[in-house]
Amino acid sequence: MAEALVLEEKGKLSLRDIALPDALGAEDVRIAVDVVGVCGSDVHYYTHGKIGPFVVEQPMVLGHEASGHITEVGSAVTNLAVGDRVCMEPGIPNTRSKAAKLGVYNVDPAVRFWATPPVHGCLTPSVVHPAAFTYKLPDNVSFAEGAMVEPFAIGMQAAAKARIKPGDVALVTGAGPIGVMTAIAALAGGCAKVYISDLVEEKLAVAAQYDNVEPVLIPRDNPADTLRAATDGWGADVVFECVGAATSIHTALEAAAPAGCVVWVGMPVDPVPFDLVLAQSKELRMETVFRYANMYERAIALLGSGKVDLKPLISQTFAFKDSVAAFDRAVEARPTDVKIQIKIGAV
Amino acid sequence: MAEALVLEEKGKLSLRDIALPDALGAEDVRIAVDVVGVCGSDVHYYTHGKIGPFVVEQPMVLGHEASGHITEVGSAVTNLAVGDRVCMEPGIPNTRSKAAKLGVYNVDPAVRFWATPPVHGCLTPSVVHPAAFTYKLPDNVSFAEGAMVEPFAIGMQAAAKARIKPGDVALVTGAGPIGVMTAIAALAGGCAKVYISDLVEEKLAVAAQYDNVEPVLIPRDNPADTLRAATDGWGADVVFECVGAATSIHTALEAAAPAGCVVWVGMPVDPVPFDLVLAQSKELRMETVFRYANMYERAIALLGSGKVDLKPLISQTFAFKDSVAAFDRAVEARPTDVKIQIKIGAV
Amino acid sequence: MAEALVLEEKGKLSLRDIALPDALGAEDVRIAVDVVGVCGSDVHYYTHGKIGPFVVEQPMVLGHEASGHITEVGSAVTNLAVGDRVCMEPGIPNTRSKAAKLGVYNVDPAVRFWATPPVHGCLTPSVVHPAAFTYKLPDNVSFAEGAMVEPFAIGMQAAAKARIKPGDVALVTGAGPIGVMTAIAALAGGCAKVYISDLVEEKLAVAAQYDNVEPVLIPRDNPADTLRAATDGWGADVVFECVGAATSIHTALEAAAPAGCVVWVGMPVDPVPFDLVLAQSKELRMETVFRYANMYERAIALLGSGKVDLKPLISQTFAFKDSVAAFDRAVEARPTDVKIQIKIGAV
Amino acid sequence: MAEALVLEEKGKLSLRDIALPDALGAEDVRIAVDVVGVCGSDVHYYTHGKIGPFVVEQPMVLGHEASGHITEVGSAVTNLAVGDRVCMEPGIPNTRSKAAKLGVYNVDPAVRFWATPPVHGCLTPSVVHPAAFTYKLPDNVSFAEGAMVEPFAIGMQAAAKARIKPGDVALVTGAGPIGVMTAIAALAGGCAKVYISDLVEEKLAVAAQYDNVEPVLIPRDNPADTLRAATDGWGADVVFECVGAATSIHTALEAAAPAGCVVWVGMPVDPVPFDLVLAQSKELRMETVFRYANMYERAIALLGSGKVDLKPLISQTFAFKDSVAAFDRAVEARPTDVKIQIKIGAV
Repeated sequence: MAEALVLEEKGKLSLRDIALPDALGAEDVRIAVDVVGVCGSDVHYYTHGKIGPFVVEQPMVLGHEASGHITEVGSAVTNLAVGDRVCMEPGIPNTRSKAAKLGVYNVDPAVRFWATPPVHGCLTPSVVHPAAFTYKLPDNVSFAEGAMVEPFAIGMQAAAKARIKPGDVALVTGAGPIGVMTAIAALAGGCAKVYISDLVEEKLAVAAQYDNVEPVLIPRDNPADTLRAATDGWGADVVFECVGAATSIHTALEAAAPAGCVVWVGMPVDPVPFDLVLAQSKELRMETVFRYANMYERAIALLGSGKVDLKPLISQTFAFKDSVAAFDRAVEARPTDVKIQIKIGAV
Repeated sequence: MAEALVLEEKGKLSLRDIALPDALGAEDVRIAVDVVGVCGSDVHYYTHGKIGPFVVEQPMVLGHEASGHITEVGSAVTNLAVGDRVCMEPGIPNTRSKAAKLGVYNVDPAVRFWATPPVHGCLTPSVVHPAAFTYKLPDNVSFAEGAMVEPFAIGMQAAAKARIKPGDVALVTGAGPIGVMTAIAALAGGCAKVYISDLVEEKLAVAAQYDNVEPVLIPRDNPADTLRAATDGWGADVVFECVGAATSIHTALEAAAPAGCVVWVGMPVDPVPFDLVLAQSKELRMETVFRYANMYERAIALLGSGKVDLKPLISQTFAFKDSVAAFDRAVEARPTDVKIQIKIGAV
Repeated sequence: MAEALVLEEKGKLSLRDIALPDALGAEDVRIAVDVVGVCGSDVHYYTHGKIGPFVVEQPMVLGHEASGHITEVGSAVTNLAVGDRVCMEPGIPNTRSKAAKLGVYNVDPAVRFWATPPVHGCLTPSVVHPAAFTYKLPDNVSFAEGAMVEPFAIGMQAAAKARIKPGDVALVTGAGPIGVMTAIAALAGGCAKVYISDLVEEKLAVAAQYDNVEPVLIPRDNPADTLRAATDGWGADVVFECVGAATSIHTALEAAAPAGCVVWVGMPVDPVPFDLVLAQSKELRMETVFRYANMYERAIALLGSGKVDLKPLISQTFAFKDSVAAFDRAVEARPTDVKIQIKIGAV
Repeated sequence: MAEALVLEEKGKLSLRDIALPDALGAEDVRIAVDVVGVCGSDVHYYTHGKIGPFVVEQPMVLGHEASGHITEVGSAVTNLAVGDRVCMEPGIPNTRSKAAKLGVYNVDPAVRFWATPPVHGCLTPSVVHPAAFTYKLPDNVSFAEGAMVEPFAIGMQAAAKARIKPGDVALVTGAGPIGVMTAIAALAGGCAKVYISDLVEEKLAVAAQYDNVEPVLIPRDNPADTLRAATDGWGADVVFECVGAATSIHTALEAAAPAGCVVWVGMPVDPVPFDLVLAQSKELRMETVFRYANMYERAIALLGSGKVDLKPLISQTFAFKDSVAAFDRAVEARPTDVKIQIKIGAV
């Protein structure tokens, strides 16, 4: 039995003891969890009880953005040692599956992902995890930053899929947490400049702290005109669509340059009207992302080198005992909130 | 003045004399046109008077799928000589444009394309064309096959965009002319097997003549189940959507394998409902095609080597004097009709 | 104890009983071996006792090109059943390694590969193998062809690395077994035509059986002139160098087209003089291959569809009891010998 | 007649009047040259009278790294106007050639390149150039920086060819001007960190001014050990070899990670011994660069956004009248010299 933040059912959270698996396999490590970030998906399970086909049917521990330190290593583990400061990749594929052999383990249908029903998450003081999906943090990367690697990895996956060429000009639609992370990843990943657009001026303020990330407040009407003007009429080499709404999706197609790329990051709830001929007339390439694969080491390298700084995105930190309050704040997030974290570790 | 097949206005064709530009520039060649294929777009201008934003507002010569032989060369032409048998790429970009410098001259906004208003086409006995967009035919490739290079180049562009890996399994939705050409290109371009699906059994008969192109008659309900079964449930590595209808577009997303690719070839008239999350859940790459660039030499190499045989796709050949009848037959095309050609040359 | 072909030491082979591991893990299958091909590396261990850093220091079973049928499955195996006809990928990586997670499990330093010291090979009637590296054969692919998948996978890896575009013209230097397999893979993988060159006319005869594989007998002096002439002076889009000798390596660079690709398949024993500036002046891309990854399913798909026929490459088949004779024949191989196989299975 | 820096013959420079072509074509612009950088190739023509097959056989104006402002535009020019501040791409291809159509105009055999015999360079107050190869400078990019675009474009081409993934770790061998430019381009182009190695400590000082460019002083013996240690033993994802000497070339192969990439930038005078098997054992991809194509706009975007700062690399500026002295200083360059420029413009 261990204390954990349990989603009992839609709308009901408890911080209580629950029985969790804790057997340590030969290739596993045991980790004292230090920081866990609150993700939009955690909040959505709390408020809606489900995401698409994934329905919370029994009490489930939330949380999947985590860092901590190793307290025990399995008998076959050679790359990690007790005391190592780490962050953890929350999805565990079958590494012998067809998808995993191809290097795209994120689309292995058998992936088990923290806090995706019926798999428990990591908002609890100690977890067991495969060493192969546990990554060492450099000394200069804090636990708080380590817990940011998970959401940043999504931006990294988007940037990697775009196959940015050095000096590309990118546009990110939507200045929410994922939009901002994607903008930072795209800039670090080779763009000369990244425009980021939103309808809400306050949300742009966070992104505006970053050099070469240029906020663009767009009107509801003809936002594409505003955006194309920003690129001298040619359009953006890469557009990252991070809203998932129909108008934004259309804007993304309009704002892309001939032979450019659109990366579909935002997830619309329902099918959207899509102007395929518009994409064809510019012969756009379109990429999609599903979580990430092989991005943790890259994200950590960027944090460790100092090229990427995610600290400005950590809006609030709550103590573990205040986890429910943390979620309630996340439900009522303000435009300038980016990431709320929960601190479990002692210091 | 030269005789030509002129679309006077929507619904009205004449074979009559018309003044056409015929000045031969230093980098141009003059070509005696031998065979011109009738394309769906020619037919659509005939029946509708427009395609999207392109409206026939004055008499326009039709035709853009052409072969012939050189009768005169400009002073700076070195790669072609009088008597050479050739086929012609109908779109002429500004080769100094940004798009052309990038190697994607097909998306140069300044492209002038035969039989796209207000540019005249080539259904006339003699045309002037830039040598750089005129390609020699091998001796074993007939004029009739040479006139097939243009539509086949679309299939080639689709196959090239897919970045087929040797041994991929592909699916083509829609067994019309472009679907069949795409299937042939995909097979020649590296696929182990290409499934081609249609609702109409007779249309599949043409494709079925090709080894390793496997026709699949699909039901209107749940066509994706039928198609996934054909690939052991994993899905197709590449799907070429060649219908452009909403149901077929959804089927394409359903039938693609995890981390697979969908190439959008078919052009829906209006925006279609699009299940972006379905694409994201498999992390699909999606490519679009707009005509073609740098495909003529590749297409000709495949015809010349004998690896590709397009002769079975030539359904009927009309004499130049019967050009109007050729178009009327094309308007009333039967399911087994693929390509109707018009023979202008003497022999 | 099981009967096996054992390399006792350099130059000494015995068909004798030897203790081999035979524990069946949960994710393993047991396979009755039917056919094993003799590879140049097996022969080289026999004649030299080592390959580079890999030295035979204790008796080792030879053989790694194998097919057979399943006789037992581990408790966690779901994709294979007793009786399935299969072929086996001889290299087993740690699927949780960094390289394997990236999809390039072939370069995992921890790979264990059959018949590479100190790992035993498969020239014995029964082997245990991970189900994830055991692949079902279609009904129309014989065990003899199944045992060809391993060497063909090398050609497939080379073709995949080349990123062939549909209609490319390729050149393969060297008409030995790997050269011919590579030519077949390149042709199936999208080339319009594949030239294959050799100094020895008889070796070209085998390749000449394949449509669109065009043999080129080259002179010792200036072979590149002969080869460039075959491609109208432009050069080959892709060159697969399959000899590994200094002159052939230079010829490969000379014969490649501007912005073309050279795939280095042949392995020179020592460092070779290399004209890097020649490669730079054409801005060549150069790829290398180390065995293969994710190629078995692709190779089997091509065999199953009939697009690739490897039967003409099977020169001789010896009974298991004549295994030593098979190796002695391989040592004295004639120019027209391609693949010698050993039949272990009853029928 | 115009004043120009003329290389009369090997070892002899004059600043004198010379007849230069100055007809302005419809698609050309006339440019008042402001700054011209001195390139190693200019210096090499001065000291050796030739580079490889390019021999100075008659007086030739030197210089090809230039910026200036437009003084006249041809009748068909629409993208530039009198007064525009610009820099110029020194190689002019035939944009209708096969290579140019493919987007690799840099390998068009017909390219005419400034200061490559017999083509005159731009060390003269006014030049005529095609508008399509003349690029506007943003207001915040000085003429001096504009003249740095040419050498930086080589680093950009190398970075683009590497296909850097966000967060890659790179190694540059050689801290000369091209090495440093390549390191800067690789970092801006997506690397988390770039190690740059040299045998000479003073040369590393220039690179050390840049964040995340980490200088590594290497010993003559076993430099690869030092370099692999810098990447935790895995090796660099990308190695840019910028020396062109045999030992450095071998080090590059040793320091690359499994499945990594080596970009060959340095040009060895003669063929070098090359350990192809070492490359194969890690399945390295190897890219080469020949000048650049489509890199000017990208380089300018990086300068304009402030993400790249090349000002620290400008070591000295000489007046036009002191051009010969500028070259003599370049011949005797000190380890900390990077770029010497000549100022022609008034202010």
